[in-house]
Amino acid sequence: MTEVRQLRPTPDQFAYAFGGREPLLVVRPGTIVELFTEDCYAGKVTSVDDLPSEVCQFPFLNPVTGPIAVEGAEVGDTLAVHFVEITPARDLAFSSTFPHFGALTGTHQTAMLHPALEERVWRYDIDVAAGTCTFRARRSDLVIDLPLDPFHGTVGVAPAAGETIMSITPAAHGGNMDTPEMRAGVTAYFPVNVPGGLLAIGDGHARQGEGEVCGTAIESAMNTVVLVDLIKGRAPVSPRMESDSFLMTTGNTRPLEDAFRMSQSDLVGWTAELFDLELLDAYQLVSQVGLAPTGNVVDTNYTMVAKFPKSLLGIDAYEGIHQRLRAAGRDYLRHR
Amino acid sequence: MTEVRQLRPTPDQFAYAFGGREPLLVVRPGTIVELFTEDCYAGKVTSVDDLPSEVCQFPFLNPVTGPIAVEGAEVGDTLAVHFVEITPARDLAFSSTFPHFGALTGTHQTAMLHPALEERVWRYDIDVAAGTCTFRARRSDLVIDLPLDPFHGTVGVAPAAGETIMSITPAAHGGNMDTPEMRAGVTAYFPVNVPGGLLAIGDGHARQGEGEVCGTAIESAMNTVVLVDLIKGRAPVSPRMESDSFLMTTGNTRPLEDAFRMSQSDLVGWTAELFDLELLDAYQLVSQVGLAPTGNVVDTNYTMVAKFPKSLLGIDAYEGIHQRLRAAGRDYLRHR
Amino acid sequence: MTEVRQLRPTPDQFAYAFGGREPLLVVRPGTIVELFTEDCYAGKVTSVDDLPSEVCQFPFLNPVTGPIAVEGAEVGDTLAVHFVEITPARDLAFSSTFPHFGALTGTHQTAMLHPALEERVWRYDIDVAAGTCTFRARRSDLVIDLPLDPFHGTVGVAPAAGETIMSITPAAHGGNMDTPEMRAGVTAYFPVNVPGGLLAIGDGHARQGEGEVCGTAIESAMNTVVLVDLIKGRAPVSPRMESDSFLMTTGNTRPLEDAFRMSQSDLVGWTAELFDLELLDAYQLVSQVGLAPTGNVVDTNYTMVAKFPKSLLGIDAYEGIHQRLRAAGRDYLRHR
Amino acid sequence: MTEVRQLRPTPDQFAYAFGGREPLLVVRPGTIVELFTEDCYAGKVTSVDDLPSEVCQFPFLNPVTGPIAVEGAEVGDTLAVHFVEITPARDLAFSSTFPHFGALTGTHQTAMLHPALEERVWRYDIDVAAGTCTFRARRSDLVIDLPLDPFHGTVGVAPAAGETIMSITPAAHGGNMDTPEMRAGVTAYFPVNVPGGLLAIGDGHARQGEGEVCGTAIESAMNTVVLVDLIKGRAPVSPRMESDSFLMTTGNTRPLEDAFRMSQSDLVGWTAELFDLELLDAYQLVSQVGLAPTGNVVDTNYTMVAKFPKSLLGIDAYEGIHQRLRAAGRDYLRHR
Repeated sequence: MTEVRQLRPTPDQFAYAFGGREPLLVVRPGTIVELFTEDCYAGKVTSVDDLPSEVCQFPFLNPVTGPIAVEGAEVGDTLAVHFVEITPARDLAFSSTFPHFGALTGTHQTAMLHPALEERVWRYDIDVAAGTCTFRARRSDLVIDLPLDPFHGTVGVAPAAGETIMSITPAAHGGNMDTPEMRAGVTAYFPVNVPGGLLAIGDGHARQGEGEVCGTAIESAMNTVVLVDLIKGRAPVSPRMESDSFLMTTGNTRPLEDAFRMSQSDLVGWTAELFDLELLDAYQLVSQVGLAPTGNVVDTNYTMVAKFPKSLLGIDAYEGIHQRLRAAGRDYLRHR
Repeated sequence: MTEVRQLRPTPDQFAYAFGGREPLLVVRPGTIVELFTEDCYAGKVTSVDDLPSEVCQFPFLNPVTGPIAVEGAEVGDTLAVHFVEITPARDLAFSSTFPHFGALTGTHQTAMLHPALEERVWRYDIDVAAGTCTFRARRSDLVIDLPLDPFHGTVGVAPAAGETIMSITPAAHGGNMDTPEMRAGVTAYFPVNVPGGLLAIGDGHARQGEGEVCGTAIESAMNTVVLVDLIKGRAPVSPRMESDSFLMTTGNTRPLEDAFRMSQSDLVGWTAELFDLELLDAYQLVSQVGLAPTGNVVDTNYTMVAKFPKSLLGIDAYEGIHQRLRAAGRDYLRHR
Repeated sequence: MTEVRQLRPTPDQFAYAFGGREPLLVVRPGTIVELFTEDCYAGKVTSVDDLPSEVCQFPFLNPVTGPIAVEGAEVGDTLAVHFVEITPARDLAFSSTFPHFGALTGTHQTAMLHPALEERVWRYDIDVAAGTCTFRARRSDLVIDLPLDPFHGTVGVAPAAGETIMSITPAAHGGNMDTPEMRAGVTAYFPVNVPGGLLAIGDGHARQGEGEVCGTAIESAMNTVVLVDLIKGRAPVSPRMESDSFLMTTGNTRPLEDAFRMSQSDLVGWTAELFDLELLDAYQLVSQVGLAPTGNVVDTNYTMVAKFPKSLLGIDAYEGIHQRLRAAGRDYLRHR
Repeated sequence: MTEVRQLRPTPDQFAYAFGGREPLLVVRPGTIVELFTEDCYAGKVTSVDDLPSEVCQFPFLNPVTGPIAVEGAEVGDTLAVHFVEITPARDLAFSSTFPHFGALTGTHQTAMLHPALEERVWRYDIDVAAGTCTFRARRSDLVIDLPLDPFHGTVGVAPAAGETIMSITPAAHGGNMDTPEMRAGVTAYFPVNVPGGLLAIGDGHARQGEGEVCGTAIESAMNTVVLVDLIKGRAPVSPRMESDSFLMTTGNTRPLEDAFRMSQSDLVGWTAELFDLELLDAYQLVSQVGLAPTGNVVDTNYTMVAKFPKSLLGIDAYEGIHQRLRAAGRDYLRHR
């Protein structure tokens, strides 16, 4: 029987970085954790009049729930994090521009002389039963029901080399990758860089386009269920994901072509290993069948995802752990 | 009744650039053109022993069929090019690495001290009836039937400012964008920069992953049917596309985040116009619903595509020309 | 005795592109050419009230003088262009911002949602005798005499592959590199891509900082004297330069690190060849002694320069042609 | 009388990160610190046969000496660090390539399929009296005496937001910027992000070209004298420097054009403030007089420097603190 634990941080227990912190929870491999995550505004935006730059205070942005230590996780191991369920925790969610943040504005890094674009907040009504989040234009009457597609923008572990990295940054340890692929039904794989691995999760999104162009998604507190497991050794260079349909790798750096190169290079290597292909043969195969959506193009690092369709060949990554966790997740949902 | 023309260039009639050349064919708006395109190797690679760097001669790479002048097309107008059918013309197609070309190798621009990766050719058997192209590893026995998904890597018009640009370069005039979105059933929109517009098409791909990672797709000669039409005025800044499901914009430049920015910026502007949305409202909406796949990350310029799902709202871009051309294309296929 | 020719185009004779054009002048190797170049505004900005976007008309920007064909220049040869003298032709010069152009603004490529920065013109008084150009702030009373340091922003030849490229773009053929290194006393080396080479020169700058940050220098019509010579074979991949003190290579592409890589890679190769060094030994030596200033970070492509100090070793690049042309140039100045 | 302190860490006292660590030394503002720094190889490379990837162990690379807390330094203040003297501590120094590290090789971020370039070590003899470091080619007999030009590649403070960042990374807190401008006679300015500021210094270079192309300089242990002072408030966004001749700003990010933009943007703002210039007037002035050399183009982030010549106007940055520290440093040297 799968063990089930809860993690619902008190306001002062949220973390704002990966690394440099004691675990809030210690679990055995194979444990289900029911957890709550606050939105990226730390819950401070409650109406379209709450401008994030006024109600939020740097660096208390993008709180994450955790860290969760996994017993027996040693440096070089792989944490497998299966998302069983991700459900918006409130019937309201918010999105916004933020001064000098986003893909189509000058930023701290892409420094320009323009004054900031207007800071504006959008309120979305969330209807979990109907599966919708409702966009309302602020300067006209347009209203559209968008399909819910919840995922976590920020998932990661403690970094290597003793680093402590703000929760807003995606890198080799995961973090704020903001890829919509991180949805329920997916298993994510992270390198263990410190004993216990120290998983943390946050930044729930009711939905988001690829690229997170304006800098924020439909930011939503979440009730989330994950199944946390451990693979000995085989730590990936960067986070990987697996769904029923795709193997996925990520690259988290700048410029965007380097994030692309990192994700593709890891997918070529993974494909070569899984299919016992010589490297250039794998390069060729990935070139003809892979997908390459953007994760985010707005954070301190950018994120690209590379996807290989599992339908092409029987694939048994990590000895079929995804199928096993998927089944256990479904079993949990059936019996709770 | 739709007029139907043929364009099957003789070997010396192929073009290797956009611009700087008299039309091979002049058509009225609304004409169907049945045309033949050679593969990017100019048909010189006929077995895995034909190394492109030996059998092809720069700059006679990536031949295009055209240009086709459209009567009445004036600077500032928009060419609408609807792809009715794209069919591999041979039962063989090839892909290859090429010295210092591709996303995961040092190149002329990303200049490095490494010797070139091995130049290697892969032969694919094409079975149009079965809808497959067959990958055969060169260093092991792996054989996989991949689904055919034919499209044109290179579609464009004469550039602005009197430029003549090699067919291998994607830019504001289109050219070698290498996006799999350019498949049958899609309408592409190009700015008219010179009288007649001067459309040219080439670089057929039996299929390709996003990014064209190794530098080439499954390169295939094609028998292609296009319906060429004219929209007065409204020239887009960069090529746009429309399918039954998506509005699409492109950005063609370097680095990849600038290609992303160009494509997203145009999609935000287009969305604002179509839905009568204020600019930041459109920015918000695109951020939550858009897709952002890579076109190519290997050519002299990179290509990003931004996609808006038409299902969200009744959309009538360019007064519904896509639906009209789509219907005419289906009519042609039914009656030929 | 060195042959001396003049080239002073009539207004309709200026070119706005490299390639696609018959020569205005044909010279023998070793000829001195006294020429006039118009400023990048085509002379249309005559006061701070002449906004470039209003008085100039795309693509009639950045006129170049030429092309000049060199007898006997064949594809694969090297044009040596020695700048004997560059003198501002008027006592006024102008600089400006330009909408969506420059390093610290959203541009057509780095596309953003910001409205353009203000378009503003600065007038500089030029005093050739005193060696000054005078900056006057537009919104305060600050006036500073800056030292004249005249050079040509745009120098290049006809591109390869039959391309015709706007004069505003720097690339492998040279063009709008906007590096202050292109001053009197310097010899520049260009690949010959078409018979005659087809040299053209323009975009005189009374002075400019590295990077041309705001998008324009102190733009000045010039009376310029060049000595044009021919080296058989040995065409460089990208333009090179040589002064009394430095060997210099250039990279012209995007992103800026690729322009850096191109320039450094060529300098490593050139150093290896000149000193008979193995490649990694040359990489090491360049790493410890080279300089790496920016050319421009604003044009359609960016430009980086790599510099190797000649003082370290006796260097005889291209059989000492720079010293020979330098002497001939001084001789011309002494005797005219 | 200036207080003088010593800091010579024991082997286990070196730090390998900025942040996350108690001070080794606490000083009053205005204190001179005589310190020793180990080379980037932690002293483990002692001959050309010691390959760094074999004798060094990640993350114990690039040791820094410190941190040094400054009494009274509060968040938002500015640390002024004046380099009085930087002297190679041994008569030997080393440089090397390192697998997948450097500007002209595939790296972890610019991920490629090439095998690593050869790892090779170069030994330099250091002669402080003669002012030379001697290059010896490894594959030929070339020997060249290069002028010593010692500086510190790594200087920084504890980062903001509670981050701990590997000493190999340059960012807003400084760190591994690898700019040759950080030489004796220069004052560097850092933001205080935590109480005490927590300055650390390492990575001495006997000399280095701009860009640190191969990934390492002439790596040398150093005996260094710094004068540490405090400016209340006015924390810069990124490290700044000041020499007798130049005001300098830095940008530390990727891609390289963003590092350029950050450095130029800060220089424009600083110039506007110092000369009481409106922003676009400052943009114009910097565009015509600034220099823009590369710092490093090899680390996890790139570094660009922007330089404004002080000769143009009487400049009194930070109330003339540089001149005051310069004088005190000279006084110390005269009297020790």
